Amino acid sequence: MQTQLLTVAYNGARYAGWQRQDGFDTVQERLELALLTIFGEALVVQGAGRTDAGVHALRQSAHVRLPKAMQSPLLVRAINGNLPQDIVVRDARVVPDSFHARFSAVGKRYAYRFVVTPVRPVLALGFCHWQRTPIDVDAMRQAARHLIGEHDFASFASNPGYERSRGTVRRVHHLHLQRRSHGVDLVIQGGGFLYNMVRAIAGTLLDVGRGRRSPAEVREILAARDRRLAGATAAAAGLFLLRVLYPRQALEREA
Amino acid sequence: MQTQLLTVAYNGARYAGWQRQDGFDTVQERLELALLTIFGEALVVQGAGRTDAGVHALRQSAHVRLPKAMQSPLLVRAINGNLPQDIVVRDARVVPDSFHARFSAVGKRYAYRFVVTPVRPVLALGFCHWQRTPIDVDAMRQAARHLIGEHDFASFASNPGYERSRGTVRRVHHLHLQRRSHGVDLVIQGGGFLYNMVRAIAGTLLDVGRGRRSPAEVREILAARDRRLAGATAAAAGLFLLRVLYPRQALEREA
Repeated sequence: MQTQLLTVAYNGARYAGWQRQDGFDTVQERLELALLTIFGEALVVQGAGRTDAGVHALRQSAHVRLPKAMQSPLLVRAINGNLPQDIVVRDARVVPDSFHARFSAVGKRYAYRFVVTPVRPVLALGFCHWQRTPIDVDAMRQAARHLIGEHDFASFASNPGYERSRGTVRRVHHLHLQRRSHGVDLVIQGGGFLYNMVRAIAGTLLDVGRGRRSPAEVREILAARDRRLAGATAAAAGLFLLRVLYPRQALEREA
Repeated sequence: MQTQLLTVAYNGARYAGWQRQDGFDTVQERLELALLTIFGEALVVQGAGRTDAGVHALRQSAHVRLPKAMQSPLLVRAINGNLPQDIVVRDARVVPDSFHARFSAVGKRYAYRFVVTPVRPVLALGFCHWQRTPIDVDAMRQAARHLIGEHDFASFASNPGYERSRGTVRRVHHLHLQRRSHGVDLVIQGGGFLYNMVRAIAGTLLDVGRGRRSPAEVREILAARDRRLAGATAAAAGLFLLRVLYPRQALEREA
């Protein structure tokens, strides 16, 4: 057996998200079908986490345990030759068999893209949230400060019942708002995220940017631990999984 | 009658180019259909120039002569409400009736995007030329210098017979190669361009970047006035019309 870590990019528009589900076209299933073709047996591609329908990834991570060793560049080429055009394996590397894409992960980084233009964007269509009127980025930055660090993010979890079993405390390492020619990119990194947490944060900070909430209100929303108080879950199309973080020792083969 | 100048953005992927052609879905026809719905009569939308099938535009210019005056913001909203999602009017303004989107233009600016990655790009798919191996941007810049200024660009025209009737001398105002995180963007501005000239230049400079031609060879290709000597016409998907230039006096209403 050989374990390889795959780095995968995809345009999420056509897929019902990452995770395999009967009757739906998913990224995980597409990768598993490619491996079935190559190895002639059903292999599981275990992702670092699910991404929802419509969410994109620049560097999703996933591991696969192969029945026989294969050189990583050959594996990349073989899988890519059996994938649709909107999914690609960027890289593969051999990792210890103890590696697990989900359980070895120590963090994730996401970007959420707001395109700010008076008329609808045509080239960024499907790759952003469109905001028609100008937004106050400084106010969004003030609000964002309240979210950095370890907090109970119950107010930003779409599925609090499920999440409560594992707790709703998470650590946000950093949260930046970058002005761009097209609008604003939100970049957030944390040790882990609750279901829909990044999109709920994006929706709430957008409310602040639009002047519908004050930056200080975000601290109160956080303290209340009540999902009804935060903003809407921002559209999936604006969300990009940028990368999954692993400690060096999880990736390196035992000597 | 009232003449308005429209600034139009579109994703060219689904269209057989700008110009109306029987039996094909084109951007011009979509705009004319929207105006037919609004005004109840057939109006001509005259573009600054054609863009080919698959070519995108950030700011194409076109004029329309309306049977009755309408405020520009209302016109923009009315047209956009009758367009598919991948075409949008960004702006409209009243211009003198002497204005003509094609004949008043004094220049155009295009970008050509090369994405340089070992595996196929999935998020930029349809918005770039994919180049698998690294390219020498400095060599491309040296080659580009030979193309700046007034020259006979017959070697870079796809349809020299047609073009010869109007001559093949054109002026390139500037031509930059910008390194970007994804690869390289070529930005070119000129007084006018021959058919497929930007894409032939992009294909030839790519050959230089890949080490298949020397920068000095580009000067020889130019001097030979023979299309067979230059590089391939680069794919339409990588080309973006950035803007059309007009002299201020063409845009301003007579006092």
